[in-house]
Amino acid sequence: MSFELSEFNERLKKTKQSMQAKEIDVLLVSNPANMNYLSGYDGWSFYVPQLLVLLIDEDQPFWIGRAQDANGAKATTWLDENHVIPYPEDHIQTTERHPMDFVCSILKEIGQSKRTIGLEMDAYYFSAQSYVKLKEGLPDAAFKDATNLVNYVRIIKSDAEISFMKKAAKIVEKAMQKGIEQVAVGARQCDVAAAIVHQQIVGTEEYGGDYTAIVPLLPSGEHTSTPHLTWTDERYETNTPVLIEIAGAYKHYHSPMARTVYLGQPSKKMIDLSSACIEGINTTLAAIKPGMTGEEVEQVWRKVIHKYGFEKESRAGYSVGLNYPPDWGEHTASFRPGDQTLLKPNMTFHLMPGIWMDDVGFECTEAIRITENGCEPFADFPRKLFIKP
Amino acid sequence: MSFELSEFNERLKKTKQSMQAKEIDVLLVSNPANMNYLSGYDGWSFYVPQLLVLLIDEDQPFWIGRAQDANGAKATTWLDENHVIPYPEDHIQTTERHPMDFVCSILKEIGQSKRTIGLEMDAYYFSAQSYVKLKEGLPDAAFKDATNLVNYVRIIKSDAEISFMKKAAKIVEKAMQKGIEQVAVGARQCDVAAAIVHQQIVGTEEYGGDYTAIVPLLPSGEHTSTPHLTWTDERYETNTPVLIEIAGAYKHYHSPMARTVYLGQPSKKMIDLSSACIEGINTTLAAIKPGMTGEEVEQVWRKVIHKYGFEKESRAGYSVGLNYPPDWGEHTASFRPGDQTLLKPNMTFHLMPGIWMDDVGFECTEAIRITENGCEPFADFPRKLFIKP
Repeated sequence: MSFELSEFNERLKKTKQSMQAKEIDVLLVSNPANMNYLSGYDGWSFYVPQLLVLLIDEDQPFWIGRAQDANGAKATTWLDENHVIPYPEDHIQTTERHPMDFVCSILKEIGQSKRTIGLEMDAYYFSAQSYVKLKEGLPDAAFKDATNLVNYVRIIKSDAEISFMKKAAKIVEKAMQKGIEQVAVGARQCDVAAAIVHQQIVGTEEYGGDYTAIVPLLPSGEHTSTPHLTWTDERYETNTPVLIEIAGAYKHYHSPMARTVYLGQPSKKMIDLSSACIEGINTTLAAIKPGMTGEEVEQVWRKVIHKYGFEKESRAGYSVGLNYPPDWGEHTASFRPGDQTLLKPNMTFHLMPGIWMDDVGFECTEAIRITENGCEPFADFPRKLFIKP
Repeated sequence: MSFELSEFNERLKKTKQSMQAKEIDVLLVSNPANMNYLSGYDGWSFYVPQLLVLLIDEDQPFWIGRAQDANGAKATTWLDENHVIPYPEDHIQTTERHPMDFVCSILKEIGQSKRTIGLEMDAYYFSAQSYVKLKEGLPDAAFKDATNLVNYVRIIKSDAEISFMKKAAKIVEKAMQKGIEQVAVGARQCDVAAAIVHQQIVGTEEYGGDYTAIVPLLPSGEHTSTPHLTWTDERYETNTPVLIEIAGAYKHYHSPMARTVYLGQPSKKMIDLSSACIEGINTTLAAIKPGMTGEEVEQVWRKVIHKYGFEKESRAGYSVGLNYPPDWGEHTASFRPGDQTLLKPNMTFHLMPGIWMDDVGFECTEAIRITENGCEPFADFPRKLFIKP
């Protein structure tokens, strides 16, 4: 197991406090990161329904998942064997039987079918059909939305979690270095992506890396105006900006980072944009401290780029840490207008002041930890526009 | 675009025929593979709500997604610009506004709020909350479950799609070769995974590879009893079976393949298991032909392994092709008891006769195409237990 049993117990305790505050007796946890956080469960099995059942008045959650994955649950969680409950293989990807019918029968069996049940209504891998099946199968239960309940428990990291994110940062430094080295006029985009992912997984000599919740995003040329296109096998041409947005991951804890490379001679607009963004991130890093709100952080950044005549509509950052595909963001605090989250030590964010315009884009980002007095980036990597003539 | 416009039109036509048969006027398509199939849309943006709106009486679907991704939609789809509808960034990962509220307002605006709307109720990335928001926001609409409606249209591949899967097969041959070379006593699991993924993305000299919908699965030792654990940074020890289950992907079309390596001298049980499985897959490959049902295929395989005293509870195969994380399976036909799908030419499957027992496991699988008279594997790779003393 990646953490001490005492840490798992602490996590459960905080989760139950939140359940109590929201008057939830039974919490069904489908988000794979939340399952991992509370039980240690780890496996690429989230493509079939699976969940943890937390009872407000029981010490151990139950893991319910596919029969084939029960040995994986025994191998990776701290749960007793009798808290690992497999459903039969004939429930997989068929319209005949739904795994949530099985979950309903278990909840009845353990006397939980008439209580208030919290559901992660907007989590990945908890489908609309799963919700309908639970409603139909448990007519005497009351349901409450518990989306992000566990995510908010995760928002302040333990020192052990911080050490994992530091390891992830060492990985992302190496992967970014590799990416910047490989991006060149004539190189294929896929070969650059391959070199980055290779380094992400190899990790360091001391420890290996994990798969990241998002694949490397490498928009280039006019595609820098849209951040989520993935690589092709085209070759880079000259006079092209290339954004590299990646993360390192250690045991599913992420340290993301983005940098921008320019192949050729950048235009004045490109240089102005990069200078504004870099001043923006440096000013923001210097300003962040505990007690600020998420929206106050965004204002610092906004003020700098406004000075240079730039606008950014999307967030300037978001909480980050443990995650599985398709997103490394935690879906809790964001640096944006309206966010009233008070920053506290050991909160961790991806400070993400990228600007994508219709003709050009620039990103230079840092994963940071809120400290007692300010903040510190996890990684140590130059913040500049990397120009390769 | 990856396909001719005529092919997209053909796909739309078939989809509308299925909508008509099910009395669906408006189809909301959230599954990223289905979105790609119908519009060409491609991007790592499925971590936020996005969808296609198909109207039974309109030629072009609408793409609705995040503002930041609208340029991506314009770059990758065949849709007119006025069929690309972005929702504002302030709808992202917040409890204040939900993207489906925006979708409801658009459906009202285009006069579709009182019709019968099909939803992919059990698809990835269509959350329970999205369903609730649509129900609340469109009180005059009738809703029908359209899970896998488009997936079933996808089940027979065009020749162009088959050519993509053949390219993917060339990639998986190289990646498997790399994996078998790298697995060795003393090697770190992560370094083997890194070498495989590197090859998957590099592809071949002629064309690059894509990210696969599932990361390499490399269970070893006692973990071969559970198929979905991912790599660690531990080193392989002697007398260990290592399963390698991977795919090649070309433009998101997958050709999966699994092989088993034994480090050291395999036990008699291991050899017996591998012989039975290999005889099973060879016999099944020789038997498959159009007109058989999915369950008949499974019976052929089952009969062989029963002869040797082995059992397998899970499926012996499933339909495969275009996909995004977290699964490359199409969720339609399977080789298992009860499956009445009639095999037809250009259906494509991952024939997956693996056996995972509590102490040992073996996999040797092939991606196949149903031909006019039988079937053919996409890849050309030896079917045997790879022993590395």
